[in-house]
Amino acid sequence: MTTADLGRGRRVGVPSTALFTDQYELTMLQAALKSGTAGRRSVFEVFTRRLPEGRRYGVVAGTGRVLDAVENFRFDPDVLAFLREKDIVDGATLDWLAGYRFSGDIWGYPEGEVYFPGSPILRVEGSFAECVLLETVILSILNHDSAIAAAASRMSSAAGGRPLIEMGARRTHELSAVAASRAAYVGGFASTSDLAAGFRYDIPTVGTSAHAFTLLHDSERDAFRAQVDSLGGGTTLLVDTYDVAEAVRTAVDIAGPELGAVRIDSGDLLLVAHRVRQQLDELGATDTKIIVTSDLDEYAIASLAAAPVDAYGVGTQLVTGSGHPTASMVYKLVARAESADPGAPLVPVAKKSSGGKTSVGGRKWAARRLDGHGVAEAEVIGTGEVPDELAGRQLLVPLVEGGEVLVRETLDVIRDRHAAARAGLPLSATQLSRGEPVLPTEYAHGTSGS
Amino acid sequence: MTTADLGRGRRVGVPSTALFTDQYELTMLQAALKSGTAGRRSVFEVFTRRLPEGRRYGVVAGTGRVLDAVENFRFDPDVLAFLREKDIVDGATLDWLAGYRFSGDIWGYPEGEVYFPGSPILRVEGSFAECVLLETVILSILNHDSAIAAAASRMSSAAGGRPLIEMGARRTHELSAVAASRAAYVGGFASTSDLAAGFRYDIPTVGTSAHAFTLLHDSERDAFRAQVDSLGGGTTLLVDTYDVAEAVRTAVDIAGPELGAVRIDSGDLLLVAHRVRQQLDELGATDTKIIVTSDLDEYAIASLAAAPVDAYGVGTQLVTGSGHPTASMVYKLVARAESADPGAPLVPVAKKSSGGKTSVGGRKWAARRLDGHGVAEAEVIGTGEVPDELAGRQLLVPLVEGGEVLVRETLDVIRDRHAAARAGLPLSATQLSRGEPVLPTEYAHGTSGS
Repeated sequence: MTTADLGRGRRVGVPSTALFTDQYELTMLQAALKSGTAGRRSVFEVFTRRLPEGRRYGVVAGTGRVLDAVENFRFDPDVLAFLREKDIVDGATLDWLAGYRFSGDIWGYPEGEVYFPGSPILRVEGSFAECVLLETVILSILNHDSAIAAAASRMSSAAGGRPLIEMGARRTHELSAVAASRAAYVGGFASTSDLAAGFRYDIPTVGTSAHAFTLLHDSERDAFRAQVDSLGGGTTLLVDTYDVAEAVRTAVDIAGPELGAVRIDSGDLLLVAHRVRQQLDELGATDTKIIVTSDLDEYAIASLAAAPVDAYGVGTQLVTGSGHPTASMVYKLVARAESADPGAPLVPVAKKSSGGKTSVGGRKWAARRLDGHGVAEAEVIGTGEVPDELAGRQLLVPLVEGGEVLVRETLDVIRDRHAAARAGLPLSATQLSRGEPVLPTEYAHGTSGS
Repeated sequence: MTTADLGRGRRVGVPSTALFTDQYELTMLQAALKSGTAGRRSVFEVFTRRLPEGRRYGVVAGTGRVLDAVENFRFDPDVLAFLREKDIVDGATLDWLAGYRFSGDIWGYPEGEVYFPGSPILRVEGSFAECVLLETVILSILNHDSAIAAAASRMSSAAGGRPLIEMGARRTHELSAVAASRAAYVGGFASTSDLAAGFRYDIPTVGTSAHAFTLLHDSERDAFRAQVDSLGGGTTLLVDTYDVAEAVRTAVDIAGPELGAVRIDSGDLLLVAHRVRQQLDELGATDTKIIVTSDLDEYAIASLAAAPVDAYGVGTQLVTGSGHPTASMVYKLVARAESADPGAPLVPVAKKSSGGKTSVGGRKWAARRLDGHGVAEAEVIGTGEVPDELAGRQLLVPLVEGGEVLVRETLDVIRDRHAAARAGLPLSATQLSRGEPVLPTEYAHGTSGS
């Protein structure tokens, strides 16, 4: 066990990430060690061939977690014993794994950036052996976190500045939930219900009560009084356990007009929110906020734009990526040396069989070209020299050099970067309706997108 | 940190699960401690109001992980310090949390059982305080794992006895992936690519090589030779990097007719599998198996029933629940004592407002009624006494008594139970087409499903 600084929050003991790995990474390593190709200098790139259907842009999220995972990728004695006992790889390979430390370089889109089909989101360079092992865990993190951040970004656009609360922990794996809170924050959410996300990442946490609290008491009045007595008049009271109008009356009666907020978790939210707002205003509770939390997605959020709603709580649809629970990123060998000789030049490589899974070989750069108004107009990807006019618009930044992590960013920096990147896209990026990626991907320098 | 025995596999250091919790569980606790209701004997039940659209049955999965999570639910000093620093709960609540140990009882459907709308999948009984805290982590585990197991079960039905390999780690959070492997095994999968799942749960792991291995070498022939030299002729060669027919010829040329298998990862699998089978047979490699692995789901698997395919590898669609990445289970207070007096009788409670989120109050039993042929015909749920004719068909079993976990099962026991439970349903259960739940839910003893 080692400890890692997981962002701005507290240090958490994390186990080695070395087994978050598909077995074939290790058997390929074994065969390459034996054949003498394991040391060939190699370039792997992470990219996606397409965005989820209808989506206008993707959001890079999880990069910080990837860097932690690379640092913690170690084959401890118990892991080596497991691999030996199960006869997964041979002794020579186990010896090699025992000394494993990634010593190569990683470049990538900075976390929070947007991406498009073909964008080289991450580039991992080193020996084949040291790079191939990282495939599975890198993809796990980026595919999960980016899927959640993309949904969060759409929801935060739809919310138009009203705060969003992430509350989906119960709808996904308990540790997925923590990563989802992090990705949601990157995508523009304001807070989370998940205490582990507060602990690990210092994301603001919120929450007051559920229906169970009302049902526990002999009456709704008793429950509200108990809650206000303990949590203060600024708390949020849940008003839809029995009759909403009655509950709102009781709530203001008990907490007074300084009641912080009421929460509505069922019913026709548009209608109920209007009625509750009117009732609160009539009771003098004009500053009491209304929070809605019932099965929201970006479309439901947008449909409530004209409703007197002050904040949205989003659960299921956030943590499941609003219909797209994973990104389709792949990790592909795009170039490798012709021999294990350290000075051998890189040769572009790519799968070539028919069937739609072809890729573009070669070590790539990427830049976002702007139009005359400073708005992004194309994602330009190429190999070789970067054209002068794009040199200042390059997207890849160094993240790891010689195995050392260069970059540690706070989530606020990443979140702000995402907001800026999204704001730099054509306005149609934030339309919720289905459409093509808002930027076309162009291939420069003789590489062609096939 | 404590260690937990996570099934049949190795012991893994796991952190306390206490923070996999929504903040409102703790604020409700604080308010209930202050109002004197925290000690009221309470019954919470986990159930779902509906199956995912079109699904015929659900699969209970994750129960073993829930029991581990309950055992590891402890407020360590660093967690208490966090809660204090962030002012999430008051000092009296922190003192109470410091001594927290679940001391109540848990009953549930045994893991691997099938379930239907309203099935009381888990019942947690104890003081309000000790039970309410467990809501989030219990739902996280059951909602995730059951969603994956349900997809796995459909896929294993569709595969008709051909083995299924779980290989979706790269498409989901790295620890979700481990739980997904476990749930897939429960649902009928044979093996996984995920080494961490092998380590933690002793699920058989498999894997040989990816396209990168072929591209690393100067020719496909060099790559195949390197792989066979190292992994033996019984290995699986990936034949779709360049030209499939050429690759199959090369593969048999190098490995001989004893070649273990070839893998096809792109293209028209039905067509390519037929061609490859014919070619292998012509080359004398009649025992060489064909494994297909390209974006499969249960429908694609079923469509390949007539193809000469020996095994399926499934990734994305498995770990994302084949369109339904989460179950919609909820954790509801269904009964509680009228006072904190330990002898006070239980009173059924339920949310009553309009809006579709109503539930059925009262502490429930459940039984599966059989028809004259021994086939299940209804899921019967009731409160009070169990009718004599159903007494032998009850579904809930004791899992935790007085805080002590009673049940530790191997995954093979759970997997066999699922196969038996599914086999006991009407045949239409395994139809992939959309339909109603294959068993109706009937409410006995005056409770009604509203």
